[in-house]
Amino acid sequence: MLNFNYRAPTRLIFGKGAQHKVGETLKPLTQKLLLHYGGQSVKKSGLYDEVVASLKGAGVSFVELGGAVPNPRLSLVHEGIDLCRREGVDMILAVGGGSAIDSAKAIALGFYHEGDVWEIYAGEKKPQKALPVATVLTIPAAGSEASPSSVITNEALQIKKGHTTELIQPVVSFINPELFFTLPKSQMGYGVADMMSHIFERYFTQTIHTDLTDALCEGTLRTILKNAPLLVDNPQDYDAWFEIGFAGTIAHINLLGLGRAQDWGCHDMEHELSAIYDVAHGGGLAVLTPSWMRYVYKENVGMFVQFAVNVMGVEGSYREPDAIVEEGIARLQAFFRRLGLPTTLRELGIGEENLELMAKKATEVAYGKEERRIGGFKKLGWQDVLNIYHLAQ
Amino acid sequence: MLNFNYRAPTRLIFGKGAQHKVGETLKPLTQKLLLHYGGQSVKKSGLYDEVVASLKGAGVSFVELGGAVPNPRLSLVHEGIDLCRREGVDMILAVGGGSAIDSAKAIALGFYHEGDVWEIYAGEKKPQKALPVATVLTIPAAGSEASPSSVITNEALQIKKGHTTELIQPVVSFINPELFFTLPKSQMGYGVADMMSHIFERYFTQTIHTDLTDALCEGTLRTILKNAPLLVDNPQDYDAWFEIGFAGTIAHINLLGLGRAQDWGCHDMEHELSAIYDVAHGGGLAVLTPSWMRYVYKENVGMFVQFAVNVMGVEGSYREPDAIVEEGIARLQAFFRRLGLPTTLRELGIGEENLELMAKKATEVAYGKEERRIGGFKKLGWQDVLNIYHLAQ
Repeated sequence: MLNFNYRAPTRLIFGKGAQHKVGETLKPLTQKLLLHYGGQSVKKSGLYDEVVASLKGAGVSFVELGGAVPNPRLSLVHEGIDLCRREGVDMILAVGGGSAIDSAKAIALGFYHEGDVWEIYAGEKKPQKALPVATVLTIPAAGSEASPSSVITNEALQIKKGHTTELIQPVVSFINPELFFTLPKSQMGYGVADMMSHIFERYFTQTIHTDLTDALCEGTLRTILKNAPLLVDNPQDYDAWFEIGFAGTIAHINLLGLGRAQDWGCHDMEHELSAIYDVAHGGGLAVLTPSWMRYVYKENVGMFVQFAVNVMGVEGSYREPDAIVEEGIARLQAFFRRLGLPTTLRELGIGEENLELMAKKATEVAYGKEERRIGGFKKLGWQDVLNIYHLAQ
Repeated sequence: MLNFNYRAPTRLIFGKGAQHKVGETLKPLTQKLLLHYGGQSVKKSGLYDEVVASLKGAGVSFVELGGAVPNPRLSLVHEGIDLCRREGVDMILAVGGGSAIDSAKAIALGFYHEGDVWEIYAGEKKPQKALPVATVLTIPAAGSEASPSSVITNEALQIKKGHTTELIQPVVSFINPELFFTLPKSQMGYGVADMMSHIFERYFTQTIHTDLTDALCEGTLRTILKNAPLLVDNPQDYDAWFEIGFAGTIAHINLLGLGRAQDWGCHDMEHELSAIYDVAHGGGLAVLTPSWMRYVYKENVGMFVQFAVNVMGVEGSYREPDAIVEEGIARLQAFFRRLGLPTTLRELGIGEENLELMAKKATEVAYGKEERRIGGFKKLGWQDVLNIYHLAQ
């Protein structure tokens, strides 16, 4: 294992009725907050009213900004920053999934930043300070409710970029599995693919002596494999949603990646799909992950045999490791299909037209820069990325 | 799963050279700290000098207090509180194992408490505030480096009591597996038994739908089962110590117990042994745990079959669950013996003489109070406790 320096300070208020505790919990922490959310779904579901009632009941002042969308946009972030400065806001409460939360985190970062907050996402400037962020989670997927990460799309440039800093780890997140009952099945599938990818990006490593984090990754993955199919049949299964919601948070709180080199190649490759085609992040990951696995596994067959056996339950002769690995990948793909997820680029409506461009954007060759090799398990150049896109067609 | 409200804010600085980062890390957090430690071992090992050099190098002022002993004493805590008040200390840095850390936490709690700090441990008063605590860990065992708990022995009353409050979760802990190389083998064994017990106390539950935390408990236990024996052969195995050290922290950070009713019967029973006989906590736990398992497993055979299969690797016919459970317990006992741990009260030098008294103290009958039934998996009265002590003879 590698040295690490780790902190995960987010308070998790988990379970039935969590959203009713928002007001009393945040009252000591804020004079005036920005209530930030997405579209109409939080209003239709009644959650918006419940959160507002909780805030008002506790005497918490707030202003609000809706409109966060999947692959959250920089323009809305700018609007939020202006609003917070004008109104003297000292905290942001995101009500939504990863989009609203990531948008809130970007506003929190931009509040104290003198230039355009995009400079931070572009890696040109380092943030020194951010507003505290709290969240009420409506979709278990992105893990943003307890992570130090945020991903924003610069829609003018068609670029999606992430930034990670402890400054934006939420101070508290309210997670009630009952809020997930009304999610469309597709959203459940996307969320599950996203959280599994957050584990895969940490799990597949060349670092050795990683017994504990291996076991934590594998146990969390098996929990997801068991519980997600229950939700296909019964979207109101509280216990299954509890497991999935908790797994989604744990998947991205980085405990599972401590002391190990991480990968993140699939995320980098997927961001290019979402930036141009605006596909669901989880859908893109479900498509790319198995192809990535088939492309890279020979770099360390033992790691992938371990995955197939310990996670996917494959049995077989260790004298035929390739067969074990392929069976593990095939089972993962079958699992994705069971959840109604796409498994080919074609199903996402993505043809040949931009594959090379996306491969070159992912590796920064498209910007006239030196090739940035992505991923950790196997370092991928633009031609590798293109090969993986082709495998995923 | 049950609702939960959880926060684990301790920064973990883990790996080689961690102790050299003490000064630079704590400098922004303190004007003057109390350096609290145990006996001569931290001086002999050179760790004391390294920590002092790091503090001085960063310009951190400090006063010091040594003398923390296993089953840390209330009298030293009183001394520490007086010293901190006199010297205007604003932080406590414990260098040691659970004893020094728990002692530091008690001092931190007592600093702002008007009466005797024992009132807090006796459950008579609630603390409102505490000094921040940091730690440099020398023994992976108690998990106190990231837990909100502290256990203190009132030597005058021969009572050992714990108190749990977020106020005493360390702000930062420095954990370098190399510091464990010189631990006597017995200490390694005691530490492993202690951390395993911290998991068992959370794992054995009557709460249903606990897939994720079951998997995290089982994975952490399997990691310990694999790595601890490596240390019997080679106490300088850095990777094995890394796994054990990390597992010890994770075991007691309460992630593994979230959303599930916990037990803590073995800890309550063991505290009575330590209070009278001053035995090592881990030794007492290694003796009591298998007997407790045999006494209670029929309350939920499925839970213990799961333990035997998923943790101890037992195979067999599920039509003979008792055989599977007994094999699991027998393997645990064999594992303890492989680490050189005691498995009978006799080996701890404990005869018949105080068994009934200890059973009555554990359940508070000895104090003329109403019987407090201990444990969660099966509620134990004093006669149950006595039966378990007898089984452990």
